[in-house]
Amino acid sequence: MTTPVNRRIVLAARPAGRPLPGDFRLETVAVPSVGAGQVLLRTLYLSLDPYMRNLMEEIGPGYAPPLALGEVLVGGTVSRVVESRHPDFRAGELVLAHAGWQDYALSDGQDLVPLGDVGRPSLALGAAGMPGFTAQVGLAEIGRPRAGETVVVGAATGAVGAMVGQLARRAGARVVGIAGGADKVRHLVETFGFDAAVDRRDPRFAERLREAAPAGIDVYFESVGGEVLDAVLPLLNIGARVPVSGFIAHYNEAGAEGDAAAPDRRPALLATLLQKRVRMEGFIVLDHYGDGLSRFKAFQREMTAAIAAGEVRALEHVVDGLERAPQGLIDLLDGRHLGKVVVAVAAP
Amino acid sequence: MTTPVNRRIVLAARPAGRPLPGDFRLETVAVPSVGAGQVLLRTLYLSLDPYMRNLMEEIGPGYAPPLALGEVLVGGTVSRVVESRHPDFRAGELVLAHAGWQDYALSDGQDLVPLGDVGRPSLALGAAGMPGFTAQVGLAEIGRPRAGETVVVGAATGAVGAMVGQLARRAGARVVGIAGGADKVRHLVETFGFDAAVDRRDPRFAERLREAAPAGIDVYFESVGGEVLDAVLPLLNIGARVPVSGFIAHYNEAGAEGDAAAPDRRPALLATLLQKRVRMEGFIVLDHYGDGLSRFKAFQREMTAAIAAGEVRALEHVVDGLERAPQGLIDLLDGRHLGKVVVAVAAP
Repeated sequence: MTTPVNRRIVLAARPAGRPLPGDFRLETVAVPSVGAGQVLLRTLYLSLDPYMRNLMEEIGPGYAPPLALGEVLVGGTVSRVVESRHPDFRAGELVLAHAGWQDYALSDGQDLVPLGDVGRPSLALGAAGMPGFTAQVGLAEIGRPRAGETVVVGAATGAVGAMVGQLARRAGARVVGIAGGADKVRHLVETFGFDAAVDRRDPRFAERLREAAPAGIDVYFESVGGEVLDAVLPLLNIGARVPVSGFIAHYNEAGAEGDAAAPDRRPALLATLLQKRVRMEGFIVLDHYGDGLSRFKAFQREMTAAIAAGEVRALEHVVDGLERAPQGLIDLLDGRHLGKVVVAVAAP
Repeated sequence: MTTPVNRRIVLAARPAGRPLPGDFRLETVAVPSVGAGQVLLRTLYLSLDPYMRNLMEEIGPGYAPPLALGEVLVGGTVSRVVESRHPDFRAGELVLAHAGWQDYALSDGQDLVPLGDVGRPSLALGAAGMPGFTAQVGLAEIGRPRAGETVVVGAATGAVGAMVGQLARRAGARVVGIAGGADKVRHLVETFGFDAAVDRRDPRFAERLREAAPAGIDVYFESVGGEVLDAVLPLLNIGARVPVSGFIAHYNEAGAEGDAAAPDRRPALLATLLQKRVRMEGFIVLDHYGDGLSRFKAFQREMTAAIAAGEVRALEHVVDGLERAPQGLIDLLDGRHLGKVVVAVAAP
């Protein structure tokens, strides 16, 4: 008889720029024992998301505390309850959790969302989960696309971006996606139904974007920054809205302090905001879950049904095994994956 | 008998950076004759405003066409109708107009606002005019200060800034002003009733601002950019609002392209917008005048009464004579004046 152990991945060192495999460390510890009011969770799927890079910094991003050295990396998971001393949960059921980068975790139940009997449980980490909800919140609260308007999505094949495009199309907007590489660009149109797609690696990217948005841009869903933002700014229409959910182009720059060799692009940004009367607004999806996660749960139900009905498409890239999670995050930040990246930690 | 002539100041050359006297030229031409449906206006007061610098660029700011070389500089005026062939105006009455930098101008009446019998007609160019209305629109549409919140105003002794502070205080906010020089800082508290004021020329400016806003900043009324914005960003509270009405620190930079020697401050701005869920939004007051100028006229009535009742203070710097208007604008952009700058063109 083998005693189960808990493998976990902790922060070994703070990355200087792009994370390296040595910034992570795999440890093996005992499976924790369950106290009164707790449940023991077995991780089935771990979500990989760009925000994780930010939490590895010494100075946190402000919306979540930074990780301490030696701490288990955080992350959303689909987990199975293996033991319960909590009245609301029973062994065997599937839940959406925040168990982090490890095989087992304890929870007091407060952050758990029962998943019931869903077809593909990993969707609860992507299109029907936090990334999809990020897309919905940014569009509903800030972007507010109207029928006939043009919506441009940076990082459009990512877990958030693919949903932004599909939700904006459902609102009647014309949707243009930006992605890196011909394969991704093709998927934007063929898989996700974008009206047009532009390759940001094209040497004539800015010109191609202009051609793809002949009526200008009314909503730019910002998650990239850098040269993509440079190309978008001159195309913004008067009264454009720019929800800011991230800026992945800068995550691997130490402290997002910018490049000292580059010119200062802030004055030109201010000029655009003023001249075009642009609303640019950051948001953190955690602020919008609602009492008792009510708003998130409603989204999850609606989106699970829409995916099952084929009205919304969800692509996944599955990384096989917890031990491969560090390379999975590095590849995600490098833009190597198509669709939502999840780690298959244990067989469902 | 002397025939009246029309002196006018035209754009002689496009400024490279800071405008110079040689960029302007004083011309003398005949007074135009009045056609059917027109009025002839005599300029009494000409408003000087930072936006005028922008219109001198070859590529306009987008919200107004750039001036052509040889064209009369634009500007709001208080004018007297000297001859009328328009049914709604009679000779002798005072109007708010856009006669520009000249003694006489024709109007078809569409842009004229009758001023009636006001005490200080020049106030219609400042606290009770476009700058004051800019303050109100930025606060009402974007800033939305709540009682007890902290509002910070850049360029606080300017025509817009002094009104932002006073209107925000009327809404119950704690108001901190930023200005350049001890004399201006003193006026912010003593004349305009700000709760605190900070000198941006103080070597420890950022630290002083932090001390003056111990609960952080909920609304920053942006009209400066540059180092003032640098000091404000770390102090913004979660959910802060930043109405952008200008960025005078950059107006004298060619094309607002920024300083190639400075680091790129855009990534850090994006990071702040995201982490603090900040709404940053540009606006142009011209968009908000209302049908038939209804909203502007209501503001003007209300503010004229509030100033007469001593509830709102208005400071003016009067430049004597049209021929001194160019130096007046140069000094305004250099921050040499206190209060609203008007040119007295003719005796009322």
